[in-house]
Amino acid sequence: MSNRPDTRKRLIGAARELFLEQGYAATGVAQILKKAGARSGSLYYFFPTKEDLLLAVLEDYRDLLWPLVIQPVFDRIDDPLERIFGVLDGYRQMLRMTKCTIGCPIGNLALELSGSHPQARKLIAQNFSGWTAAIEQCIVDAADRLPESADAYDLAQFVLTTMEGAVMLSRAYRKIDPFDTAVAQLREYFDLLVAQGTEWSRPRTPE
Amino acid sequence: MSNRPDTRKRLIGAARELFLEQGYAATGVAQILKKAGARSGSLYYFFPTKEDLLLAVLEDYRDLLWPLVIQPVFDRIDDPLERIFGVLDGYRQMLRMTKCTIGCPIGNLALELSGSHPQARKLIAQNFSGWTAAIEQCIVDAADRLPESADAYDLAQFVLTTMEGAVMLSRAYRKIDPFDTAVAQLREYFDLLVAQGTEWSRPRTPE
Repeated sequence: MSNRPDTRKRLIGAARELFLEQGYAATGVAQILKKAGARSGSLYYFFPTKEDLLLAVLEDYRDLLWPLVIQPVFDRIDDPLERIFGVLDGYRQMLRMTKCTIGCPIGNLALELSGSHPQARKLIAQNFSGWTAAIEQCIVDAADRLPESADAYDLAQFVLTTMEGAVMLSRAYRKIDPFDTAVAQLREYFDLLVAQGTEWSRPRTPE
Repeated sequence: MSNRPDTRKRLIGAARELFLEQGYAATGVAQILKKAGARSGSLYYFFPTKEDLLLAVLEDYRDLLWPLVIQPVFDRIDDPLERIFGVLDGYRQMLRMTKCTIGCPIGNLALELSGSHPQARKLIAQNFSGWTAAIEQCIVDAADRLPESADAYDLAQFVLTTMEGAVMLSRAYRKIDPFDTAVAQLREYFDLLVAQGTEWSRPRTPE
């Protein structure tokens, strides 16, 4: 029984991959067991229901958001606004590596399960809130370049909106173009905000 | 057999509602038959596979996009940029009416099926392209108010990106706020573009 924590991890990892590739409802117990190399006894021991396994997958995503998604970008990039586009670029890389078949795992589960799985929905919202908080911090750090009217939380949520919509379109078209278009439009929006913020704080030219 | 076309329609309608409420994979044959009040013989006669029924649902959405989603807004609103926000408001109404459980039916299917169902994916992309074309027309009609550098197709695709991301977040949070935030940010972006366009085309003030 010494490998129990390992089995639990393997089950979560297998479920994560299968949910990502084919969705939650389409994933069967047999597939999970096969991929994890586990027996049904272990599965039911750790996860009495399929939903329990789903919740563990979502908790994992939530706990790994900073170390795996955010921190590496923040370590690499100093400029707070460029950090935002660095985070977005991580999703572009995932799309590219998978030929636009896989984008944001949370987004998939959000649309499939929000209506029918209340506990999962709450964890999905927590994942979104963690992501938004990281982007909000970037915007707060760049506040001196943005117009005073710009709300950091609203802008951060708009960045998430853009990322999720862009991943969806790139998956539907099987092309990176819609993702790139959306990020370019978002950058244009930020550029206009920065231009407005700079305009406002520029000293008046002497008469 | 005189009611055959009617049975086909009822099957499509039942599948459309069930896919919308619970997703494609989670919807079983028995549920579809019960909701449509049809026998399995009719189902297999019209739709030899579940995917055939899915494709019929997606063709229906595509064919009904203009008469049901776009034209009513265009009839009601004349200003081309306000037409865009009128279309977005239709999705807001759907979210409100369903307590944020149902948003855009195409978006749901896009994330669930794009990776695994190539024919469905193509029809999903066609639905997105039809939607984008309607918004692009609005932007072309408002071209004299926008900067010359603004690309109508790219902007239209960004509107779709925003709508899909916003619907996802509102469903995940079960609140209309993320949708409203995204639309407000999109409007701010359009306002900045219009300000830039107007600035550019304004006659120089006499010295």
